[in-house]
Amino acid sequence: MKILLVGGTGTIGKRIYWRLQNKHELVTVGTKSGDVHMDMTDPHSIEELFNSVGKIDALVVAAGGAPMASLKELTQEHFYEGIRSKMMGQINLALIGQRYINAGGSITLTSGILADDPIAMGVILSTVNGAVNGFVVGAAGELFRQGIRINVVSPGVVEDSMEAIGGYFPGHNPVPMERVVNAYVKSIEGVRTGEIIRVF
Amino acid sequence: MKILLVGGTGTIGKRIYWRLQNKHELVTVGTKSGDVHMDMTDPHSIEELFNSVGKIDALVVAAGGAPMASLKELTQEHFYEGIRSKMMGQINLALIGQRYINAGGSITLTSGILADDPIAMGVILSTVNGAVNGFVVGAAGELFRQGIRINVVSPGVVEDSMEAIGGYFPGHNPVPMERVVNAYVKSIEGVRTGEIIRVF
Ligand SMILES: NC(=O)c1ccc[n+]([C@@H]2O[C@H](COP(=O)([O-])OP(=O)(O)OC[C@H]3O[C@@H](n4cnc5c(N)ncnc54)[C@H](OP(=O)(O)O)[C@@H]3O)[C@@H](O)[C@H]2O)c1
Ligand SMILES: NC(=O)c1ccc[n+]([C@@H]2O[C@H](COP(=O)([O-])OP(=O)(O)OC[C@H]3O[C@@H](n4cnc5c(N)ncnc54)[C@H](OP(=O)(O)O)[C@@H]3O)[C@@H](O)[C@H]2O)c1
Repeated sequence: MKILLVGGTGTIGKRIYWRLQNKHELVTVGTKSGDVHMDMTDPHSIEELFNSVGKIDALVVAAGGAPMASLKELTQEHFYEGIRSKMMGQINLALIGQRYINAGGSITLTSGILADDPIAMGVILSTVNGAVNGFVVGAAGELFRQGIRINVVSPGVVEDSMEAIGGYFPGHNPVPMERVVNAYVKSIEGVRTGEIIRVF
Repeated sequence: MKILLVGGTGTIGKRIYWRLQNKHELVTVGTKSGDVHMDMTDPHSIEELFNSVGKIDALVVAAGGAPMASLKELTQEHFYEGIRSKMMGQINLALIGQRYINAGGSITLTSGILADDPIAMGVILSTVNGAVNGFVVGAAGELFRQGIRINVVSPGVVEDSMEAIGGYFPGHNPVPMERVVNAYVKSIEGVRTGEIIRVF
């Protein structure tokens, strides 16, 4: 399979890369790192990416962020930052990508535990994660008609991120990297569609 | 209780109004209808609303929409229409409203079945409903510290809407209006917080 891996140099993405590199043809994407450069917050940049890469069998996105702050301080501008990045960045990749994915192929997006199990200062991530989950549930039926599957991996805080952000997640169980990567592999190589694959 | 009821003249909102009018002091809001006029897609209009209405005990939102179209036709502009209305309209009402809600008070938003149980052409509603659900899950803990509860009612297609939109929902069970209104009453007068009250 030819797999476009957005965020393929990140904490989660590089583990996906390591697992799949010998079995599939991988193209990694980041704003500054990876084989091809693209900014998922800019739809034109997404169009250019697909124009240059052409037809693929799988689109995997392990990228996109949102600001963390307490509810009292938040304005809509903070929300729109997360909307443009993790929410509409991933949705635009799927909307534009659907034209470039071969029948039998798949889309795998990333949300996260905070849609279900919140932390302080995490309300924008809870919101955009919920949106990405909803998008995948809503899009699966119509993508099925095009022969394309779509799933979303919703990880808990992962082991490799504990040092950097574990303090935000009191009492959370860090998820082993192998289990997180397994969820992406299941989505890419398995048969299910419209699933929120919760790894926590 | 003094209750601000956004969408209080709509299909669902007027039923909430009828149930609560003899027990509470209600202020209904719509763009053209209701006691006070406000456009939830415009944050300035929301600020003006709260400036004129002042302190309240409960904010209830039964308003906000999103375009329906098939995935192949959708661009990000269609998504941003739903984001500005049903998603950020409700989130801005909660963000701005938190400063005007008395301790012991509550916020009740509205999402819908499509976040969990999708229909063709409904992907934007699935997305924004998921976002509103995620927002409520994420916001509850911090609002609790302010003495404010928050819940979201997620109705299936309601009986009074079957004639107009039932055709989009093959095989769905229309929800009796009384059950939908009960969910809002439970959120307003009950004790729970951070709940997605599914009525389907
Ligand atoms: N880490 C966790 O514990 C955890 C838990 C749950 C969910 N998640 C979610 O999983 C995803 C990946 O997280 P991570 O921790 O692996 O992130 P990360 O280590 O920060 O890596 C981010 C990756 O995405 C690329 N990237 C960043 N901004 C981009 C943009 N605008 N356009 C295209 N590529 C971009 C980066 O490459 P460049 O630097 O070259 O741009 C990098 O490859 C995120 O959506 C995150 O919210 C993470
Ligand atoms: N009906 C269903 O079966 C169903 C099922 C699940 C979820 N829902 C959700 O429930 C909510 C209410 O649905 P409904 O069917 O009762 O809607 P509706 O009959 O169209 O009523 C909408 C209400 O909201 C007001 N409104 C519309 N746009 C507004 C804006 N920009 N700012 C402020 N107020 C505005 C309208 O008053 P004006 O005309 O004066 O603006 C009216 O009072 C929506 O979020 C809908 O998605 C509905």
